[in-house]
Amino acid sequence: MAILQARLESLQHIVLRTLMKNYSAKQVGVQKYEDKIRLDVKSDVDLTQIDKKEFELNVNNVINRKLDVSNKTYPINELPEGIDISLLRGKQMNEVRVVSIGDFDSEPCDDVHVSNTSEIGQYKLLSIEKVGKDTYRFMNSVQGLGDAESKDVPQKIEPRLLKGFRDFLPEELKLRKKVFAIFEKIFEKYGYEPLETPILEYFDILMGKYGEEEKLVYKFEDSGGRKVAMKYDLTVPTARVLAQYQDKIKLPFKRYQIQPVWRADNTQKGRFREFYQCDADCLGTASMTADAEFISMAIEILEKLGFKEFLVRINNRKILNAISKYAEAEDKFYEIVYAIDKWDKRTPAATKDDLIAKGLSDAQVEKVFSCINLLGTTSMEKLNDLEKKLGSIPEGKEGINELREIIGLVNNEVILKYDPTIARGLTYYTGPVWEITVIEGGVGSVAGCGRYDKLVGSYLGRDIPATGGSFGIERIIEVMKDRGMALNDQSEEQEKIMVANMEGFTKEAFDLAAKLRAEGKIVFLYPEAKKLGKQLEFADKKGFDKVYILGENEINAGGAPQVKEMKR
Amino acid sequence: MAILQARLESLQHIVLRTLMKNYSAKQVGVQKYEDKIRLDVKSDVDLTQIDKKEFELNVNNVINRKLDVSNKTYPINELPEGIDISLLRGKQMNEVRVVSIGDFDSEPCDDVHVSNTSEIGQYKLLSIEKVGKDTYRFMNSVQGLGDAESKDVPQKIEPRLLKGFRDFLPEELKLRKKVFAIFEKIFEKYGYEPLETPILEYFDILMGKYGEEEKLVYKFEDSGGRKVAMKYDLTVPTARVLAQYQDKIKLPFKRYQIQPVWRADNTQKGRFREFYQCDADCLGTASMTADAEFISMAIEILEKLGFKEFLVRINNRKILNAISKYAEAEDKFYEIVYAIDKWDKRTPAATKDDLIAKGLSDAQVEKVFSCINLLGTTSMEKLNDLEKKLGSIPEGKEGINELREIIGLVNNEVILKYDPTIARGLTYYTGPVWEITVIEGGVGSVAGCGRYDKLVGSYLGRDIPATGGSFGIERIIEVMKDRGMALNDQSEEQEKIMVANMEGFTKEAFDLAAKLRAEGKIVFLYPEAKKLGKQLEFADKKGFDKVYILGENEINAGGAPQVKEMKR
Repeated sequence: MAILQARLESLQHIVLRTLMKNYSAKQVGVQKYEDKIRLDVKSDVDLTQIDKKEFELNVNNVINRKLDVSNKTYPINELPEGIDISLLRGKQMNEVRVVSIGDFDSEPCDDVHVSNTSEIGQYKLLSIEKVGKDTYRFMNSVQGLGDAESKDVPQKIEPRLLKGFRDFLPEELKLRKKVFAIFEKIFEKYGYEPLETPILEYFDILMGKYGEEEKLVYKFEDSGGRKVAMKYDLTVPTARVLAQYQDKIKLPFKRYQIQPVWRADNTQKGRFREFYQCDADCLGTASMTADAEFISMAIEILEKLGFKEFLVRINNRKILNAISKYAEAEDKFYEIVYAIDKWDKRTPAATKDDLIAKGLSDAQVEKVFSCINLLGTTSMEKLNDLEKKLGSIPEGKEGINELREIIGLVNNEVILKYDPTIARGLTYYTGPVWEITVIEGGVGSVAGCGRYDKLVGSYLGRDIPATGGSFGIERIIEVMKDRGMALNDQSEEQEKIMVANMEGFTKEAFDLAAKLRAEGKIVFLYPEAKKLGKQLEFADKKGFDKVYILGENEINAGGAPQVKEMKR
Repeated sequence: MAILQARLESLQHIVLRTLMKNYSAKQVGVQKYEDKIRLDVKSDVDLTQIDKKEFELNVNNVINRKLDVSNKTYPINELPEGIDISLLRGKQMNEVRVVSIGDFDSEPCDDVHVSNTSEIGQYKLLSIEKVGKDTYRFMNSVQGLGDAESKDVPQKIEPRLLKGFRDFLPEELKLRKKVFAIFEKIFEKYGYEPLETPILEYFDILMGKYGEEEKLVYKFEDSGGRKVAMKYDLTVPTARVLAQYQDKIKLPFKRYQIQPVWRADNTQKGRFREFYQCDADCLGTASMTADAEFISMAIEILEKLGFKEFLVRINNRKILNAISKYAEAEDKFYEIVYAIDKWDKRTPAATKDDLIAKGLSDAQVEKVFSCINLLGTTSMEKLNDLEKKLGSIPEGKEGINELREIIGLVNNEVILKYDPTIARGLTYYTGPVWEITVIEGGVGSVAGCGRYDKLVGSYLGRDIPATGGSFGIERIIEVMKDRGMALNDQSEEQEKIMVANMEGFTKEAFDLAAKLRAEGKIVFLYPEAKKLGKQLEFADKKGFDKVYILGENEINAGGAPQVKEMKR
């Protein structure tokens, strides 16, 4: 952040080179000040007589050429011609760093410079003085500095955030970190391992993966001319990783990934352009055990987060396929699925009208309806009824048996329910598909999950069966924040302690803080020996639970600190 | 990732519109297949008679115009003219999503499309059939699909990473996460709170903050035409946050920040372009207590990480200033500091030659040397000797007293040492400055720290005193990895357990895994009921400590699982 020094230092190069060119001057000394830079040169010309305005103009003409400033380090014996190292004489060096200002100037220098002369500002020549035989002192600065009258002050940059991006201040971030930690801990308990991939990828890795949404990908050309893109989801990078490290990754591979992604989406819908995704998936097995395990894990996570009423509603893409076969309306597959998906939002009569309008016959509609209005109360009973319809269609039979296996393993009829109206991610899921919905307060869906056997193998050129899901972690955090939901495990909440800093007893406070920390406590030591009242006011505003006070009174009374409980 | 479906779906729009335009055709049905799309249309023209090659050409001409595909959702009563919603008849909808292919076609559609027609590939008309009165069936695909003879297969994308970027696979990431957790835990113990800022900022927030290094900032124009930049360090965003949330942030503010930054730097030096920084700073107090606390904390962190031999070497920028005053060579400040910084790398004679060559007199050099070659063995003794030289210079006296205060508070003469040759970050630090060096194995500097009172207030327009430091967390992790350093707290290391999945006893294995997890264990359930040998081989390769086996033998013998210890 050495902006000012960098500006002045860069300016000095230009001033010196101008003096060298115009008056054959030679540098004899430089002195930096906070707001100006002094340059002493020797010249045969009486420099006190030059036109100061014209000299300023000459220098500003160079500045205004917006020359790039660069540097390069050369072995001393490979130094380009014309670089004057006489000022380095006596230095024992093998390498020389040369700073170049466009084509105007190159000289050895170890200092920090601007990257383009346009950042210097406009040159202001403060004074020229004769300070010795043939020696002249130039005091140099830029407009707005070292010169009280100047008005050309650089524009103030307003501190602000890009739309759709967020800062996380401590209070909110602490909650987020706790939520992330719960996910990570339970993911790991179930044998999922962490994976992280870079924020930037070659754009061609992402290209063609998101359909129309590709427009929302942040993409640009980097300084090396590579087309790069920012992470848009966690699935595509995982597919890349799977192909790239075949030797290192043993299948089945259970990985979780909690990282931010970027989407140049419309922010009016309350969406963020930078947000976290939280995925856990088991790659490389077609076994329903993996699906069942994910569901058991998701139930444990939601319980741990403190949600009371939630459902996991499961269906199977294979059952959806079988229904259109059963209704002998395979060419109306999408129309039927659309109707099933909208089932809860319309009356059966409206759904029927819709399907009829789309070309289904009454008999076909009845067949579809019979696969939705199932007899029975438990999931298993409903699946038994469904089997009476779809049992002779191999895909239907398979889908039903897969759900039976999962439901049997999870064995939680209260939370996990077969729901024939779940129909999501048609271009994505290939088998069981389930949605986790928080009922209380109408939160709705907090995770979309399922089996997708055709996706992660895309870079390998073969199918890799996969199952898992994506938790809407930002939504979950938002709900928890709104409700002031405490995290279940209260024991994790540590007391917040402040140690006051009493005049003359800073060392005692410092040692007390160290002692409390050695006991495992989290301690904020107030850094300044201010009046106790001020310190307590601060403790109150910051929400500390206790303030330890160790001053003259306490020392005289035997050295035990006074502990003040702060009411919250 | 519905690329194929998106290509076919988009193709279908163009085919249909071409038929509408050229033959007044009307859509009557669509059927999607994995590798082709069927379109049924009504037309008064006998479409079996058209020139298939010419029709293909017409469609490909549209595709080759590289038209952007976009979509917009309209309230049904605000639908633009010309959008045919007759096919939606019967749907109860308030909104209609319209997909537009450049200026060529607009129609209501809820499907996924490509973002530009160039992604479709070249159209291949497979067949035209008459399937009813005035009704014709077009089977459509793209080159390389649904057409065994075609050769124009899309180029395979090679899975690869950008130079300077890294994937973190589980094994490495677990170590990283443990190291991060140690930093976070100890930061919090010392009252530092977490802060996170976005990856993208307006470029003008970062502009002019990094001098010549600004070239290394990843910057681009986003799709909204905003000039944006990727996080380059953690200090500038913190300065912005401080100015932006003055109402929310109460000073003194102790914050830590562990986030990745991006630098388009030369990777040949073993540098990464994406790497984590790890900063902890106390903002808003000039008290040396804050400096001392940071040092105590850093010592605790390095010990916890398992480093045995390390030093915190401290100096003060004010002492450096005072030395050039004492030597009456203020105009040679940078030359003197350069010599001090290189002290350990040169003989005193060489240093002297250098300073003489730079214009200092013998007497001046002697004075400088007398401030480095100090009498005494402890830090306090050396500072007492230094005071004899600099005591009458206010800045020198102040610098000495600040160091006395810090050294007294930390009270650890073995690790914290006054070192007169520490001279770093001249444009940055304003007071005490210290470097943490790991001696063992010649690791060198692992943290640069100090007081910088002129920096973080830049957006506020006033100085905010600040002190803290940046840990070279990537370097620390690299060293720990190379040395196979175990983390101190072995109790945190959990046993890795796999539960085998025996044919016919999947439910028992599933329940056993649940039981072990309820006991707090980390459990990987093998998802498939493969041969036990295969499962044990997997467990061996993945490095599990124990495998629990629960099959027919175990069930018959009473139901207790067999526990197999895996040697590592």
